[in-house]
Amino acid sequence: MISKTAIIDKSAIIKDDVIIGENVIIEDNVYIDYGCIIRDNVHIKSGSFIGARSILGEYLMDFYKDKVNKVHPLVIGKNSLIRTENIIYGDSEIGDNFQSGHKVTIRENAKIGNSVKIGTLSDIQGYCEIGNYVSLHSNVHIGQKSKINDYVWIFPYVVLTNDPTPPSDNLIGVTIESFAIIATGSVVLPGIHIYQDSLIAAGSIVTKDVLEKNVVAGNPAKVICNIEKIKNKQTGESVYPWRFTFKRGMPWEESDYETWINSLEIRKAGENND
Amino acid sequence: MISKTAIIDKSAIIKDDVIIGENVIIEDNVYIDYGCIIRDNVHIKSGSFIGARSILGEYLMDFYKDKVNKVHPLVIGKNSLIRTENIIYGDSEIGDNFQSGHKVTIRENAKIGNSVKIGTLSDIQGYCEIGNYVSLHSNVHIGQKSKINDYVWIFPYVVLTNDPTPPSDNLIGVTIESFAIIATGSVVLPGIHIYQDSLIAAGSIVTKDVLEKNVVAGNPAKVICNIEKIKNKQTGESVYPWRFTFKRGMPWEESDYETWINSLEIRKAGENND
Amino acid sequence: MISKTAIIDKSAIIKDDVIIGENVIIEDNVYIDYGCIIRDNVHIKSGSFIGARSILGEYLMDFYKDKVNKVHPLVIGKNSLIRTENIIYGDSEIGDNFQSGHKVTIRENAKIGNSVKIGTLSDIQGYCEIGNYVSLHSNVHIGQKSKINDYVWIFPYVVLTNDPTPPSDNLIGVTIESFAIIATGSVVLPGIHIYQDSLIAAGSIVTKDVLEKNVVAGNPAKVICNIEKIKNKQTGESVYPWRFTFKRGMPWEESDYETWINSLEIRKAGENND
Repeated sequence: MISKTAIIDKSAIIKDDVIIGENVIIEDNVYIDYGCIIRDNVHIKSGSFIGARSILGEYLMDFYKDKVNKVHPLVIGKNSLIRTENIIYGDSEIGDNFQSGHKVTIRENAKIGNSVKIGTLSDIQGYCEIGNYVSLHSNVHIGQKSKINDYVWIFPYVVLTNDPTPPSDNLIGVTIESFAIIATGSVVLPGIHIYQDSLIAAGSIVTKDVLEKNVVAGNPAKVICNIEKIKNKQTGESVYPWRFTFKRGMPWEESDYETWINSLEIRKAGENND
Repeated sequence: MISKTAIIDKSAIIKDDVIIGENVIIEDNVYIDYGCIIRDNVHIKSGSFIGARSILGEYLMDFYKDKVNKVHPLVIGKNSLIRTENIIYGDSEIGDNFQSGHKVTIRENAKIGNSVKIGTLSDIQGYCEIGNYVSLHSNVHIGQKSKINDYVWIFPYVVLTNDPTPPSDNLIGVTIESFAIIATGSVVLPGIHIYQDSLIAAGSIVTKDVLEKNVVAGNPAKVICNIEKIKNKQTGESVYPWRFTFKRGMPWEESDYETWINSLEIRKAGENND
Repeated sequence: MISKTAIIDKSAIIKDDVIIGENVIIEDNVYIDYGCIIRDNVHIKSGSFIGARSILGEYLMDFYKDKVNKVHPLVIGKNSLIRTENIIYGDSEIGDNFQSGHKVTIRENAKIGNSVKIGTLSDIQGYCEIGNYVSLHSNVHIGQKSKINDYVWIFPYVVLTNDPTPPSDNLIGVTIESFAIIATGSVVLPGIHIYQDSLIAAGSIVTKDVLEKNVVAGNPAKVICNIEKIKNKQTGESVYPWRFTFKRGMPWEESDYETWINSLEIRKAGENND
């Protein structure tokens, strides 16, 4: 059940019971585990792992009218690790070093950057943008028209909504700026802007914009303090902005944020001088 | 692996690796995608699509004692669109034009009307009634003994509960009247009655009945205003009751609610005169 | 696709399309439904049922580096009933009479006692301990380092968190003592200790320890009353501590809690005298 129009690198490992559709491209060292369905026009880049029974290039709504699959390409970046039973629609694009848990759904027109992690059971509704080094934990729901910048952390059971007067067709997405953190069980209302380095405490219902470095909590969420006031209770040390105290999986993992950002700026300056 | 007692219309398309049990009826123009398990006594009506690896007619508890499947029929109405990996138990009944997302679970003794939509990962616990034109978004949890009338909207991560003194065996369901809206992340406590045209704001913990046209919010939820006071912030226009301002997918889609309801009443009067 | 190193009792029923890896042990009267993947070093004890397409012994992170499965044993106790599409990792241990809903995920280093129930879509993040007779309803999220004692009840959409200053690597788990109840949609913050016989009301955001027999509610959760004050509204009778009023599925099901606990103590005393 592998289409003749598929281009599959010889080094790729394709386990039993995999279905591969038309115009699929599978690059070198890709591993596709048991029972995956790779529908038409999917491009899986070098070194990626696709977990058992994942469905890539899933049908959009236009399929169901005439049971003919239209052209809706999907690109999965290099060295991605997609665990079992993910469903990723056509017309989406996922960057390199992507990592997902089990049973994740990503719908059409999702544009996802590099080094993004999405946890088990998360549901990305499509028509959204997710930057680089964004971490979504388990069971996060990203509504359409959401815009998530780089280095954002979102924890379990958080929902980004989009309809100010449900039901309606006037969707307004949530915008989240870099380094913001949204803790477990929070709901962010439509059109809300969450600024850089802010922290939404667990269980917050966010009905107003959250300004830079603000910590908010409650239902409705209210400003509690500046993020720099939060200490590690065991060590008494400051924790935030977190990029100065946490580096696992980040591009500054080998040194620290300041060294890394300075070296980037020096490199940029050098390039500008060329 | 297709039982000889199954009756399958010639126009039906059955993809590879589908299992079809005893006394299954598959009507014309049904499409069953790769790897579905249709257990015994399932009836799929004309024009329906069953997404890859869905399991229909799933075993009830009585199967596990002796590994013998008892008679627990399941009916799926006409022109339904069930996406991948749904699990729908026996002893349930689903109307026409049903639409579901991925990985939905519907347990036994669920009675679901026509033109109902249920989003990805929603979990219908069975022993419940859902009317016509009800829309449940992703990840909605409907507890046993819930009663949902027509034209109700329920948004992600809403839970309808049923046990006033957990753990107990005295379950009391939630009742939701027509045109009510329950926004994201709300929990409705056991036995609560939500009346027509009301709106439960996101993140509400609903501990008291909600009266007609009331808007409630908070933990615990309190009355905020009458629903007619809510305006579209961009246009300044009234939005609610929503049936006068929204029509996509509704039976009044071709005209408007008033024209439609009047024509219905005229037709009824004519029938009564016959 | 059954490994030659697997030891499978003759009375076991293995349905079609099941994959069984190296060093798997399947005891008598086990039933493995269609399409399961049993990876290496899984031991399924006598009388257990494994639902269609479940994946047991799922790969840990170390697999993905070289695509070689290391030794990470998984034990499933006797007479367990695992419904469809569960994913249970290696290095975990599940006791006897386990029961799970659909699409449950249990990651590595989860130590689960006897007679535990885990509902549909629940996500056990591993590195945690769950005692005996614990009931987790649908869609419960148990963070790493959680410690749940015997006879605890946790209801839908509850999250036990673990990171006091997210993102960080200093995880501190939640501890829940016996007979505690956590109602729907509550979030328990990192390091919180919930003591015996307490009740967390629906939608609580628990930011402080909850003392014995306390009832808490709200965001943030505050003490409401002593659990003994709660009555069944219909009968006017006291309900809590629930072990005196509820027995379905409990070891005292045949008599009552007091009779059972007394008989246990008499038996123990007898053994000590031997």
